[in-house]
Amino acid sequence: MTLFDKSEYLARLAKTQTRMMKAGIEVLVSSDPANMNYLTGYDGWSFYVPQCVVVSLADEIPLWIGRRMDVAGARHTTFLPESHILGYPENYIQTLNRHPMNFVGDVIAERGWGRKTVGVEMDAYYFTARAYAELQKHLPDARFANADLLVNWVRLIKSDAEIALMRQAGQIANRVMTTAIERLEPGVRECDAVAAVYKAQMSGTPEFGGDYPSIVPMMPTGEKTSAPHLTWTDAPYENEQMVNLELAACRHRYHCPIARTAYLGKLPPPKLVELAAHTVEGLNLTLDAIGPGMRAEAVEQVWRRHIAKAGLEKESRIGYAMGLNYPPDWGEHTVSLRPGDQTVLEPNMTFHMILGMWMDNYGFECSESFRISDTGCETFADVPRKLFIKP
Amino acid sequence: MTLFDKSEYLARLAKTQTRMMKAGIEVLVSSDPANMNYLTGYDGWSFYVPQCVVVSLADEIPLWIGRRMDVAGARHTTFLPESHILGYPENYIQTLNRHPMNFVGDVIAERGWGRKTVGVEMDAYYFTARAYAELQKHLPDARFANADLLVNWVRLIKSDAEIALMRQAGQIANRVMTTAIERLEPGVRECDAVAAVYKAQMSGTPEFGGDYPSIVPMMPTGEKTSAPHLTWTDAPYENEQMVNLELAACRHRYHCPIARTAYLGKLPPPKLVELAAHTVEGLNLTLDAIGPGMRAEAVEQVWRRHIAKAGLEKESRIGYAMGLNYPPDWGEHTVSLRPGDQTVLEPNMTFHMILGMWMDNYGFECSESFRISDTGCETFADVPRKLFIKP
Repeated sequence: MTLFDKSEYLARLAKTQTRMMKAGIEVLVSSDPANMNYLTGYDGWSFYVPQCVVVSLADEIPLWIGRRMDVAGARHTTFLPESHILGYPENYIQTLNRHPMNFVGDVIAERGWGRKTVGVEMDAYYFTARAYAELQKHLPDARFANADLLVNWVRLIKSDAEIALMRQAGQIANRVMTTAIERLEPGVRECDAVAAVYKAQMSGTPEFGGDYPSIVPMMPTGEKTSAPHLTWTDAPYENEQMVNLELAACRHRYHCPIARTAYLGKLPPPKLVELAAHTVEGLNLTLDAIGPGMRAEAVEQVWRRHIAKAGLEKESRIGYAMGLNYPPDWGEHTVSLRPGDQTVLEPNMTFHMILGMWMDNYGFECSESFRISDTGCETFADVPRKLFIKP
Repeated sequence: MTLFDKSEYLARLAKTQTRMMKAGIEVLVSSDPANMNYLTGYDGWSFYVPQCVVVSLADEIPLWIGRRMDVAGARHTTFLPESHILGYPENYIQTLNRHPMNFVGDVIAERGWGRKTVGVEMDAYYFTARAYAELQKHLPDARFANADLLVNWVRLIKSDAEIALMRQAGQIANRVMTTAIERLEPGVRECDAVAAVYKAQMSGTPEFGGDYPSIVPMMPTGEKTSAPHLTWTDAPYENEQMVNLELAACRHRYHCPIARTAYLGKLPPPKLVELAAHTVEGLNLTLDAIGPGMRAEAVEQVWRRHIAKAGLEKESRIGYAMGLNYPPDWGEHTVSLRPGDQTVLEPNMTFHMILGMWMDNYGFECSESFRISDTGCETFADVPRKLFIKP
């Protein structure tokens, strides 16, 4: 049973084929698990072995090619007919003699597409250097083209059905962040606070459950707040420490990331309070400014001008397109809110704007996930934007 | 502060350099997050951007190269001196004009290693086709060699300090599986049972906390037990259903996977009871047979002969080396317990043996994680091997 109507998948495929034609690509081999899901409905934790969806201009319906063991999962989750679900045998798994991409190449050749222009996602996480070499080996007469992000760009503007899932993720995100802030206390082990966060992520609401987010909870504390991607330890939180909470909720692979910072103690350091005030003010101001017709880089400029007044700057981008995804990232790798990105914002594009200000030995972050609406933006979660102080 | 003594990292590096010399590799670019951790201690959720450890025969100490934002994380978790931690700027992130592997190539060239033989991990998850092309572009005079799994093979035999962590993971695994079986009941939503599993995984024991396993909990039910890699829904478990539990615990990135099957109801179908009995008997028999000096394929043969008597066969391998890892897989991709693998087992090699028998519309699985001991094997977890029946 597919998550969306078959007609929605067919519309996505038609848009993909239009982009393929413009790019001169006749056959697309898409290995990105989010793209595979987007085009067919396939949803399983099987991306640790090579797999792909093959879209040809010659067929409205794509092929799913994966491990034979996962064919049953493809039957359960995709709209594809049996004839379009192909499994490679176990003897292709983790061996030097052959590679699943040999099988994929053979399938493409057997369909008579061996002399076509074949697009591959050159920088997709699970399309390895060897996967590419092995595909080339079995398609010696094909022309290869870089189709990186081709489907990701189709994903940029969400359908109303997708937005509905992101709103649900937003409701779960409220519970996730509230749980984290409630659970944080001096003496509580980091791992126990993380455990409560995970429980909230998966339990969701009484009406609907949660899915695993593409990134684990990040809750660094003390000096480690300057190292944004460290995970937790089993040390207890201490008094007079700050904790950065970079969390998310997920509903059927659609995300709502959310970040806040908490301080454990009565009197946060003035420099942290000041940084928090500037950052939250900048976030509010930037969200107020955003709307359809604006360029991505102009959004960043609003923020940049604001913090420059406080003598601050931020090297990294302030946000990115996100939605449907799998580990290791919920970002879609298309639009970034940063100088030089001239994408014009349109309704139902969805972003995570994260204002993470990391100084040498402390930091503050605050974020919102939102869609561009007809007039401005609609945030998915609803948690106060502030430095949470837990005395 | 590093997890292991500096001397342990130096010993690992020395073994790696020995293998490099044998393979004719002078400079190794290792992008696999588990290998990066193994060689330096680096532990952060930053593998969604390109990063690597560079090991040269010319230097006892490797280089860590990653995103500038993650340099603080590298300072916190590795034993490397400041001079060996290099961050690339934000303008390398997700853009078509440049790629972090250009930066890596430039660093290698600046060190005078631009004409050396450079080994790359051709099939590592996060070493994409583009990463390889971009590295080649900035090292036009280098010779490239496939160094896939070179470090993984060094990881195969664990140190006593590593085994200590895997024993701790085993203790957490007991709690994880016990929690899952307790929580499973008709009417309980799958997502709530999964939430309880996650909580147990992270809370660990009162003495030590848990880390995120490389694979999410798999708890398919009913007909979906034949689709081993589907994740959960928010549907309630029903009476007279079987649930396959493919779970794990993790301690400082070291894993103890564990799988069991439960039946909700008084009277499991006879064919399931029979399948369970054959499978458990085969697991016991195979674990009894295993020991140092035996070949990996001979282990599989013990199992194969046993189930053949019951008229059964299993296409996929029955186990694989595992230990330290990151998503999307806890397997090490070196030794497999399957026909043709002639690796001779040695003490402190660690495996997950998983006997998953998936029929057309039902399945049973039971697994153990263990190390090869001086005389046989030592399992890390301690959960009864049986079909759990919950009336």
